[in-house]
Amino acid sequence: MIPKGEIDKILEGYDRKKLAIAVICSHSALQIFHGARQEGVKTIGICKKSNKERYEAFPLAKPDEYIFVDKYEEISDHVDELAAKNAILIPHGSAVEYIGKKIETIKLPIFGNRRVLLWEADRQKMVKWLGVAGIKAPKTYKPEDIPGPAIVKFPGARGGKGYFVVKSTKEFNEKIARELKAGRITQNDVDGVVIQEFLSGVRFYPHYFYTPFFKDGFKCQEGRLEMLGLDKRIESNIDEIYRPLVFGVKTEPSYTVVGNAPVIMRESLLDEILRMGRGIVDASFELFGGIYGPFCIETIIDENFNITAFEVSARIVAGTNLYPRGSQYSCYIFDELMSTGRRISREIKVAAQKDALAKVIH
Amino acid sequence: MIPKGEIDKILEGYDRKKLAIAVICSHSALQIFHGARQEGVKTIGICKKSNKERYEAFPLAKPDEYIFVDKYEEISDHVDELAAKNAILIPHGSAVEYIGKKIETIKLPIFGNRRVLLWEADRQKMVKWLGVAGIKAPKTYKPEDIPGPAIVKFPGARGGKGYFVVKSTKEFNEKIARELKAGRITQNDVDGVVIQEFLSGVRFYPHYFYTPFFKDGFKCQEGRLEMLGLDKRIESNIDEIYRPLVFGVKTEPSYTVVGNAPVIMRESLLDEILRMGRGIVDASFELFGGIYGPFCIETIIDENFNITAFEVSARIVAGTNLYPRGSQYSCYIFDELMSTGRRISREIKVAAQKDALAKVIH
Amino acid sequence: MIPKGEIDKILEGYDRKKLAIAVICSHSALQIFHGARQEGVKTIGICKKSNKERYEAFPLAKPDEYIFVDKYEEISDHVDELAAKNAILIPHGSAVEYIGKKIETIKLPIFGNRRVLLWEADRQKMVKWLGVAGIKAPKTYKPEDIPGPAIVKFPGARGGKGYFVVKSTKEFNEKIARELKAGRITQNDVDGVVIQEFLSGVRFYPHYFYTPFFKDGFKCQEGRLEMLGLDKRIESNIDEIYRPLVFGVKTEPSYTVVGNAPVIMRESLLDEILRMGRGIVDASFELFGGIYGPFCIETIIDENFNITAFEVSARIVAGTNLYPRGSQYSCYIFDELMSTGRRISREIKVAAQKDALAKVIH
Repeated sequence: MIPKGEIDKILEGYDRKKLAIAVICSHSALQIFHGARQEGVKTIGICKKSNKERYEAFPLAKPDEYIFVDKYEEISDHVDELAAKNAILIPHGSAVEYIGKKIETIKLPIFGNRRVLLWEADRQKMVKWLGVAGIKAPKTYKPEDIPGPAIVKFPGARGGKGYFVVKSTKEFNEKIARELKAGRITQNDVDGVVIQEFLSGVRFYPHYFYTPFFKDGFKCQEGRLEMLGLDKRIESNIDEIYRPLVFGVKTEPSYTVVGNAPVIMRESLLDEILRMGRGIVDASFELFGGIYGPFCIETIIDENFNITAFEVSARIVAGTNLYPRGSQYSCYIFDELMSTGRRISREIKVAAQKDALAKVIH
Repeated sequence: MIPKGEIDKILEGYDRKKLAIAVICSHSALQIFHGARQEGVKTIGICKKSNKERYEAFPLAKPDEYIFVDKYEEISDHVDELAAKNAILIPHGSAVEYIGKKIETIKLPIFGNRRVLLWEADRQKMVKWLGVAGIKAPKTYKPEDIPGPAIVKFPGARGGKGYFVVKSTKEFNEKIARELKAGRITQNDVDGVVIQEFLSGVRFYPHYFYTPFFKDGFKCQEGRLEMLGLDKRIESNIDEIYRPLVFGVKTEPSYTVVGNAPVIMRESLLDEILRMGRGIVDASFELFGGIYGPFCIETIIDENFNITAFEVSARIVAGTNLYPRGSQYSCYIFDELMSTGRRISREIKVAAQKDALAKVIH
Repeated sequence: MIPKGEIDKILEGYDRKKLAIAVICSHSALQIFHGARQEGVKTIGICKKSNKERYEAFPLAKPDEYIFVDKYEEISDHVDELAAKNAILIPHGSAVEYIGKKIETIKLPIFGNRRVLLWEADRQKMVKWLGVAGIKAPKTYKPEDIPGPAIVKFPGARGGKGYFVVKSTKEFNEKIARELKAGRITQNDVDGVVIQEFLSGVRFYPHYFYTPFFKDGFKCQEGRLEMLGLDKRIESNIDEIYRPLVFGVKTEPSYTVVGNAPVIMRESLLDEILRMGRGIVDASFELFGGIYGPFCIETIIDENFNITAFEVSARIVAGTNLYPRGSQYSCYIFDELMSTGRRISREIKVAAQKDALAKVIH
């Protein structure tokens, strides 16, 4: 892990009036660019040539400039150039996936606490984090001891691709063998596998933002926790599997996240959702120096209003792409049309004004 | 039932330039507070201490002041204080649930016709109302004569919690016995049970607003009927039950409303939806002196565009929380971002300007 | 087909400062009227008396004037009156359904290339179009050779009504016989039947707009292709069929489109979605003189991100009714709240300013 002091030093060299954000052109980049434009923050897209058209297609959501790469890992070759442009890297799900462990050592200021991305990626750390936060998590099973329906998840933020359900150890062993043989998973995946109790209910993904700079609102650590939105992921093919099912058409269920749909929740459930968010922030300070900016808790709510969290995404989630003009919740906090992407640029601006960039950039 | 004259008298004592609304802090209170703020109407939250943070979390949707209670029924102890603040109570689903029958006698001006809340709560009255409105309702069965799939509903606005489906009298008796034994229902629930034909189709919940003060639009009684939005309720666990179902994982279905999703309907269906709304308003005048302000008809649409109504919610519904900045329908009526919550405050303002508060406040 | 020259001649006689649009009062007329009002374009509703109230109900989305008809085909009797009012007909799904083949010969300027509507209506042409566009389409089967699950579709834009699924030729023959006997289909429907491979995945319906007048953005032919939104159709009863299914309640699935829900897709999928749209535009120029204005590709996305297109709607689709104030995608292209309906009026205005009406009106 790069020492915080080194990042602070780079940051001190930055021209605070000409800050830029750098974003890997994927995941939620359109939203982040669009939000930065609204806040007047300069944007740099780390982009594969083949993806450039996607951004050009949306003139109000394209970066001010591009740095073209063949693979996103190459961002490391551009850190000096980026630093010269006063750039702060905004991590998102694809950044986590593509840069991987390198994110620990990349010599570029990152918005938020970069340690958080390691806690997100490591499922044992995740379980600990949820535990310290006092949040109910699904039971996890050992491969040799699966008592009933369980969902099998592999390491890394791959958006649910490749997850499957088993009802017994026998079925687990069979499916793992099948997947290995087909080359869809590696031994590394098997070693990092997590087998979670299958829960029934309805999924909700609340979008949070922790800021140390604003005081009115839902008190949390030295600042406040904002609830900026809520979504439901759409997974192919599981979320339309009733369509073949009704005909008895055999279909192997899969959990690839292909999109998101807007939802709201019963107002009284917000109490628990807010408390869970605070628990995550508090625990992050206890465990690894805090979480700054956006995160998401992946929950399921049963018929008795019990909320279980099966994961934390410790950065902007793609579900926030639903709300480039703000959500049903953000409009209760901000008069402006506040997306999570815009919120990030706003936070950087406020930090710069307060001469406190080092607090939220690590 | 408190005589209308008594309420009129209280209302006459109000300072029309300093009107306030009082809302029980639950259900759709955030939206109602947010809307009132937009209209410049003062807000008072009747709040349990444990829920205060929920409102503080949303600075633009919190009440101007709180009255703290241990139980919402205690609102009766605060009627003088509320009247001194020129407060009009805005009823919503939780108000109906928590204040219950007391709402008949509470000595405080209520937005809308308070009689309507009794018609909503009594299922026999409901059936009559739908009948006079000329609206197709599902068949209802007697416990001893259930010919096929039927949904079993208990009295009170509990958001679908505890509903279940049976296919025969035998199954009905078994499940009732089970629920009684488990203490999840009381004999009172059984006495008030309604057994409705199970209908297949797709659910839609149109949000209406009847106003006597505006004339252009969909004519209805002396004013107009506005269609302000449309939602679909999300019920746990039934609305994701295909996920365990595909694996043959046994899951007991439940119907607890945990949230809402935005939808629109085929344009040509609006004719019938509007006519149904008018039928409900007309019948309310025929039966009990009218309905003012927001209501919702809970419908299901089959493959031949037949629309059946299984219930009326005679006040603001939680589905309107989807649209704090207006909906796909409200923007065709109002240039402003008009939520149902804001619409309520607007109506009170217009009534005050026209010196006609007594018309919509009962 | 009416010669382009004749339309051009009518158009030359129009007062370009007093252009109007004419819309059949159905499908997406509210949205189109609302959008025209925002752009200051005059609107004429071709309306059945029985539908007038639907438009009066929405004062900001009603036409400036009505022409009343008993059947929409009667629009042909009003072409002189409409031309005298400088009217351009905006086609939508119901126009295609109700005017039918007459659309070829109607002596009135139509927004877009009227040839496109014939290509949309003819499924063999559709297959060719998708092929030239390089888009993956589902396999189609002959009635006598159905190897597995297949969806059976009949000609015309009837919104999915009457579609069904079969698993074999035997089942196909049985169901066709049943439907014919019940009078729900005609021999003509059987002759035009298309039997498509049943695909599993999740459905997405991207809304496109091709314009020759704007250059920045996603380059396409001489102009650009805009992605204005995305929806998911709601079909009764299939989209809630899991509700009876879980109880083993026997329900015949049906596919009648009754509404739409908003969705977004994984950002990285946009590349393929944009390329597919460009393929459709390019192929339309190759095959029949181009497509101008709005269209939609009906897609399904599987768990490996393979996107298959099962149809093209070559005009505004009802799913755009979700976004009268713009969508999650249109706000990345336009600073204004740009619905597809508004976009149409904007395009006509821009064409008039550039003295290029004849390019997009045929």
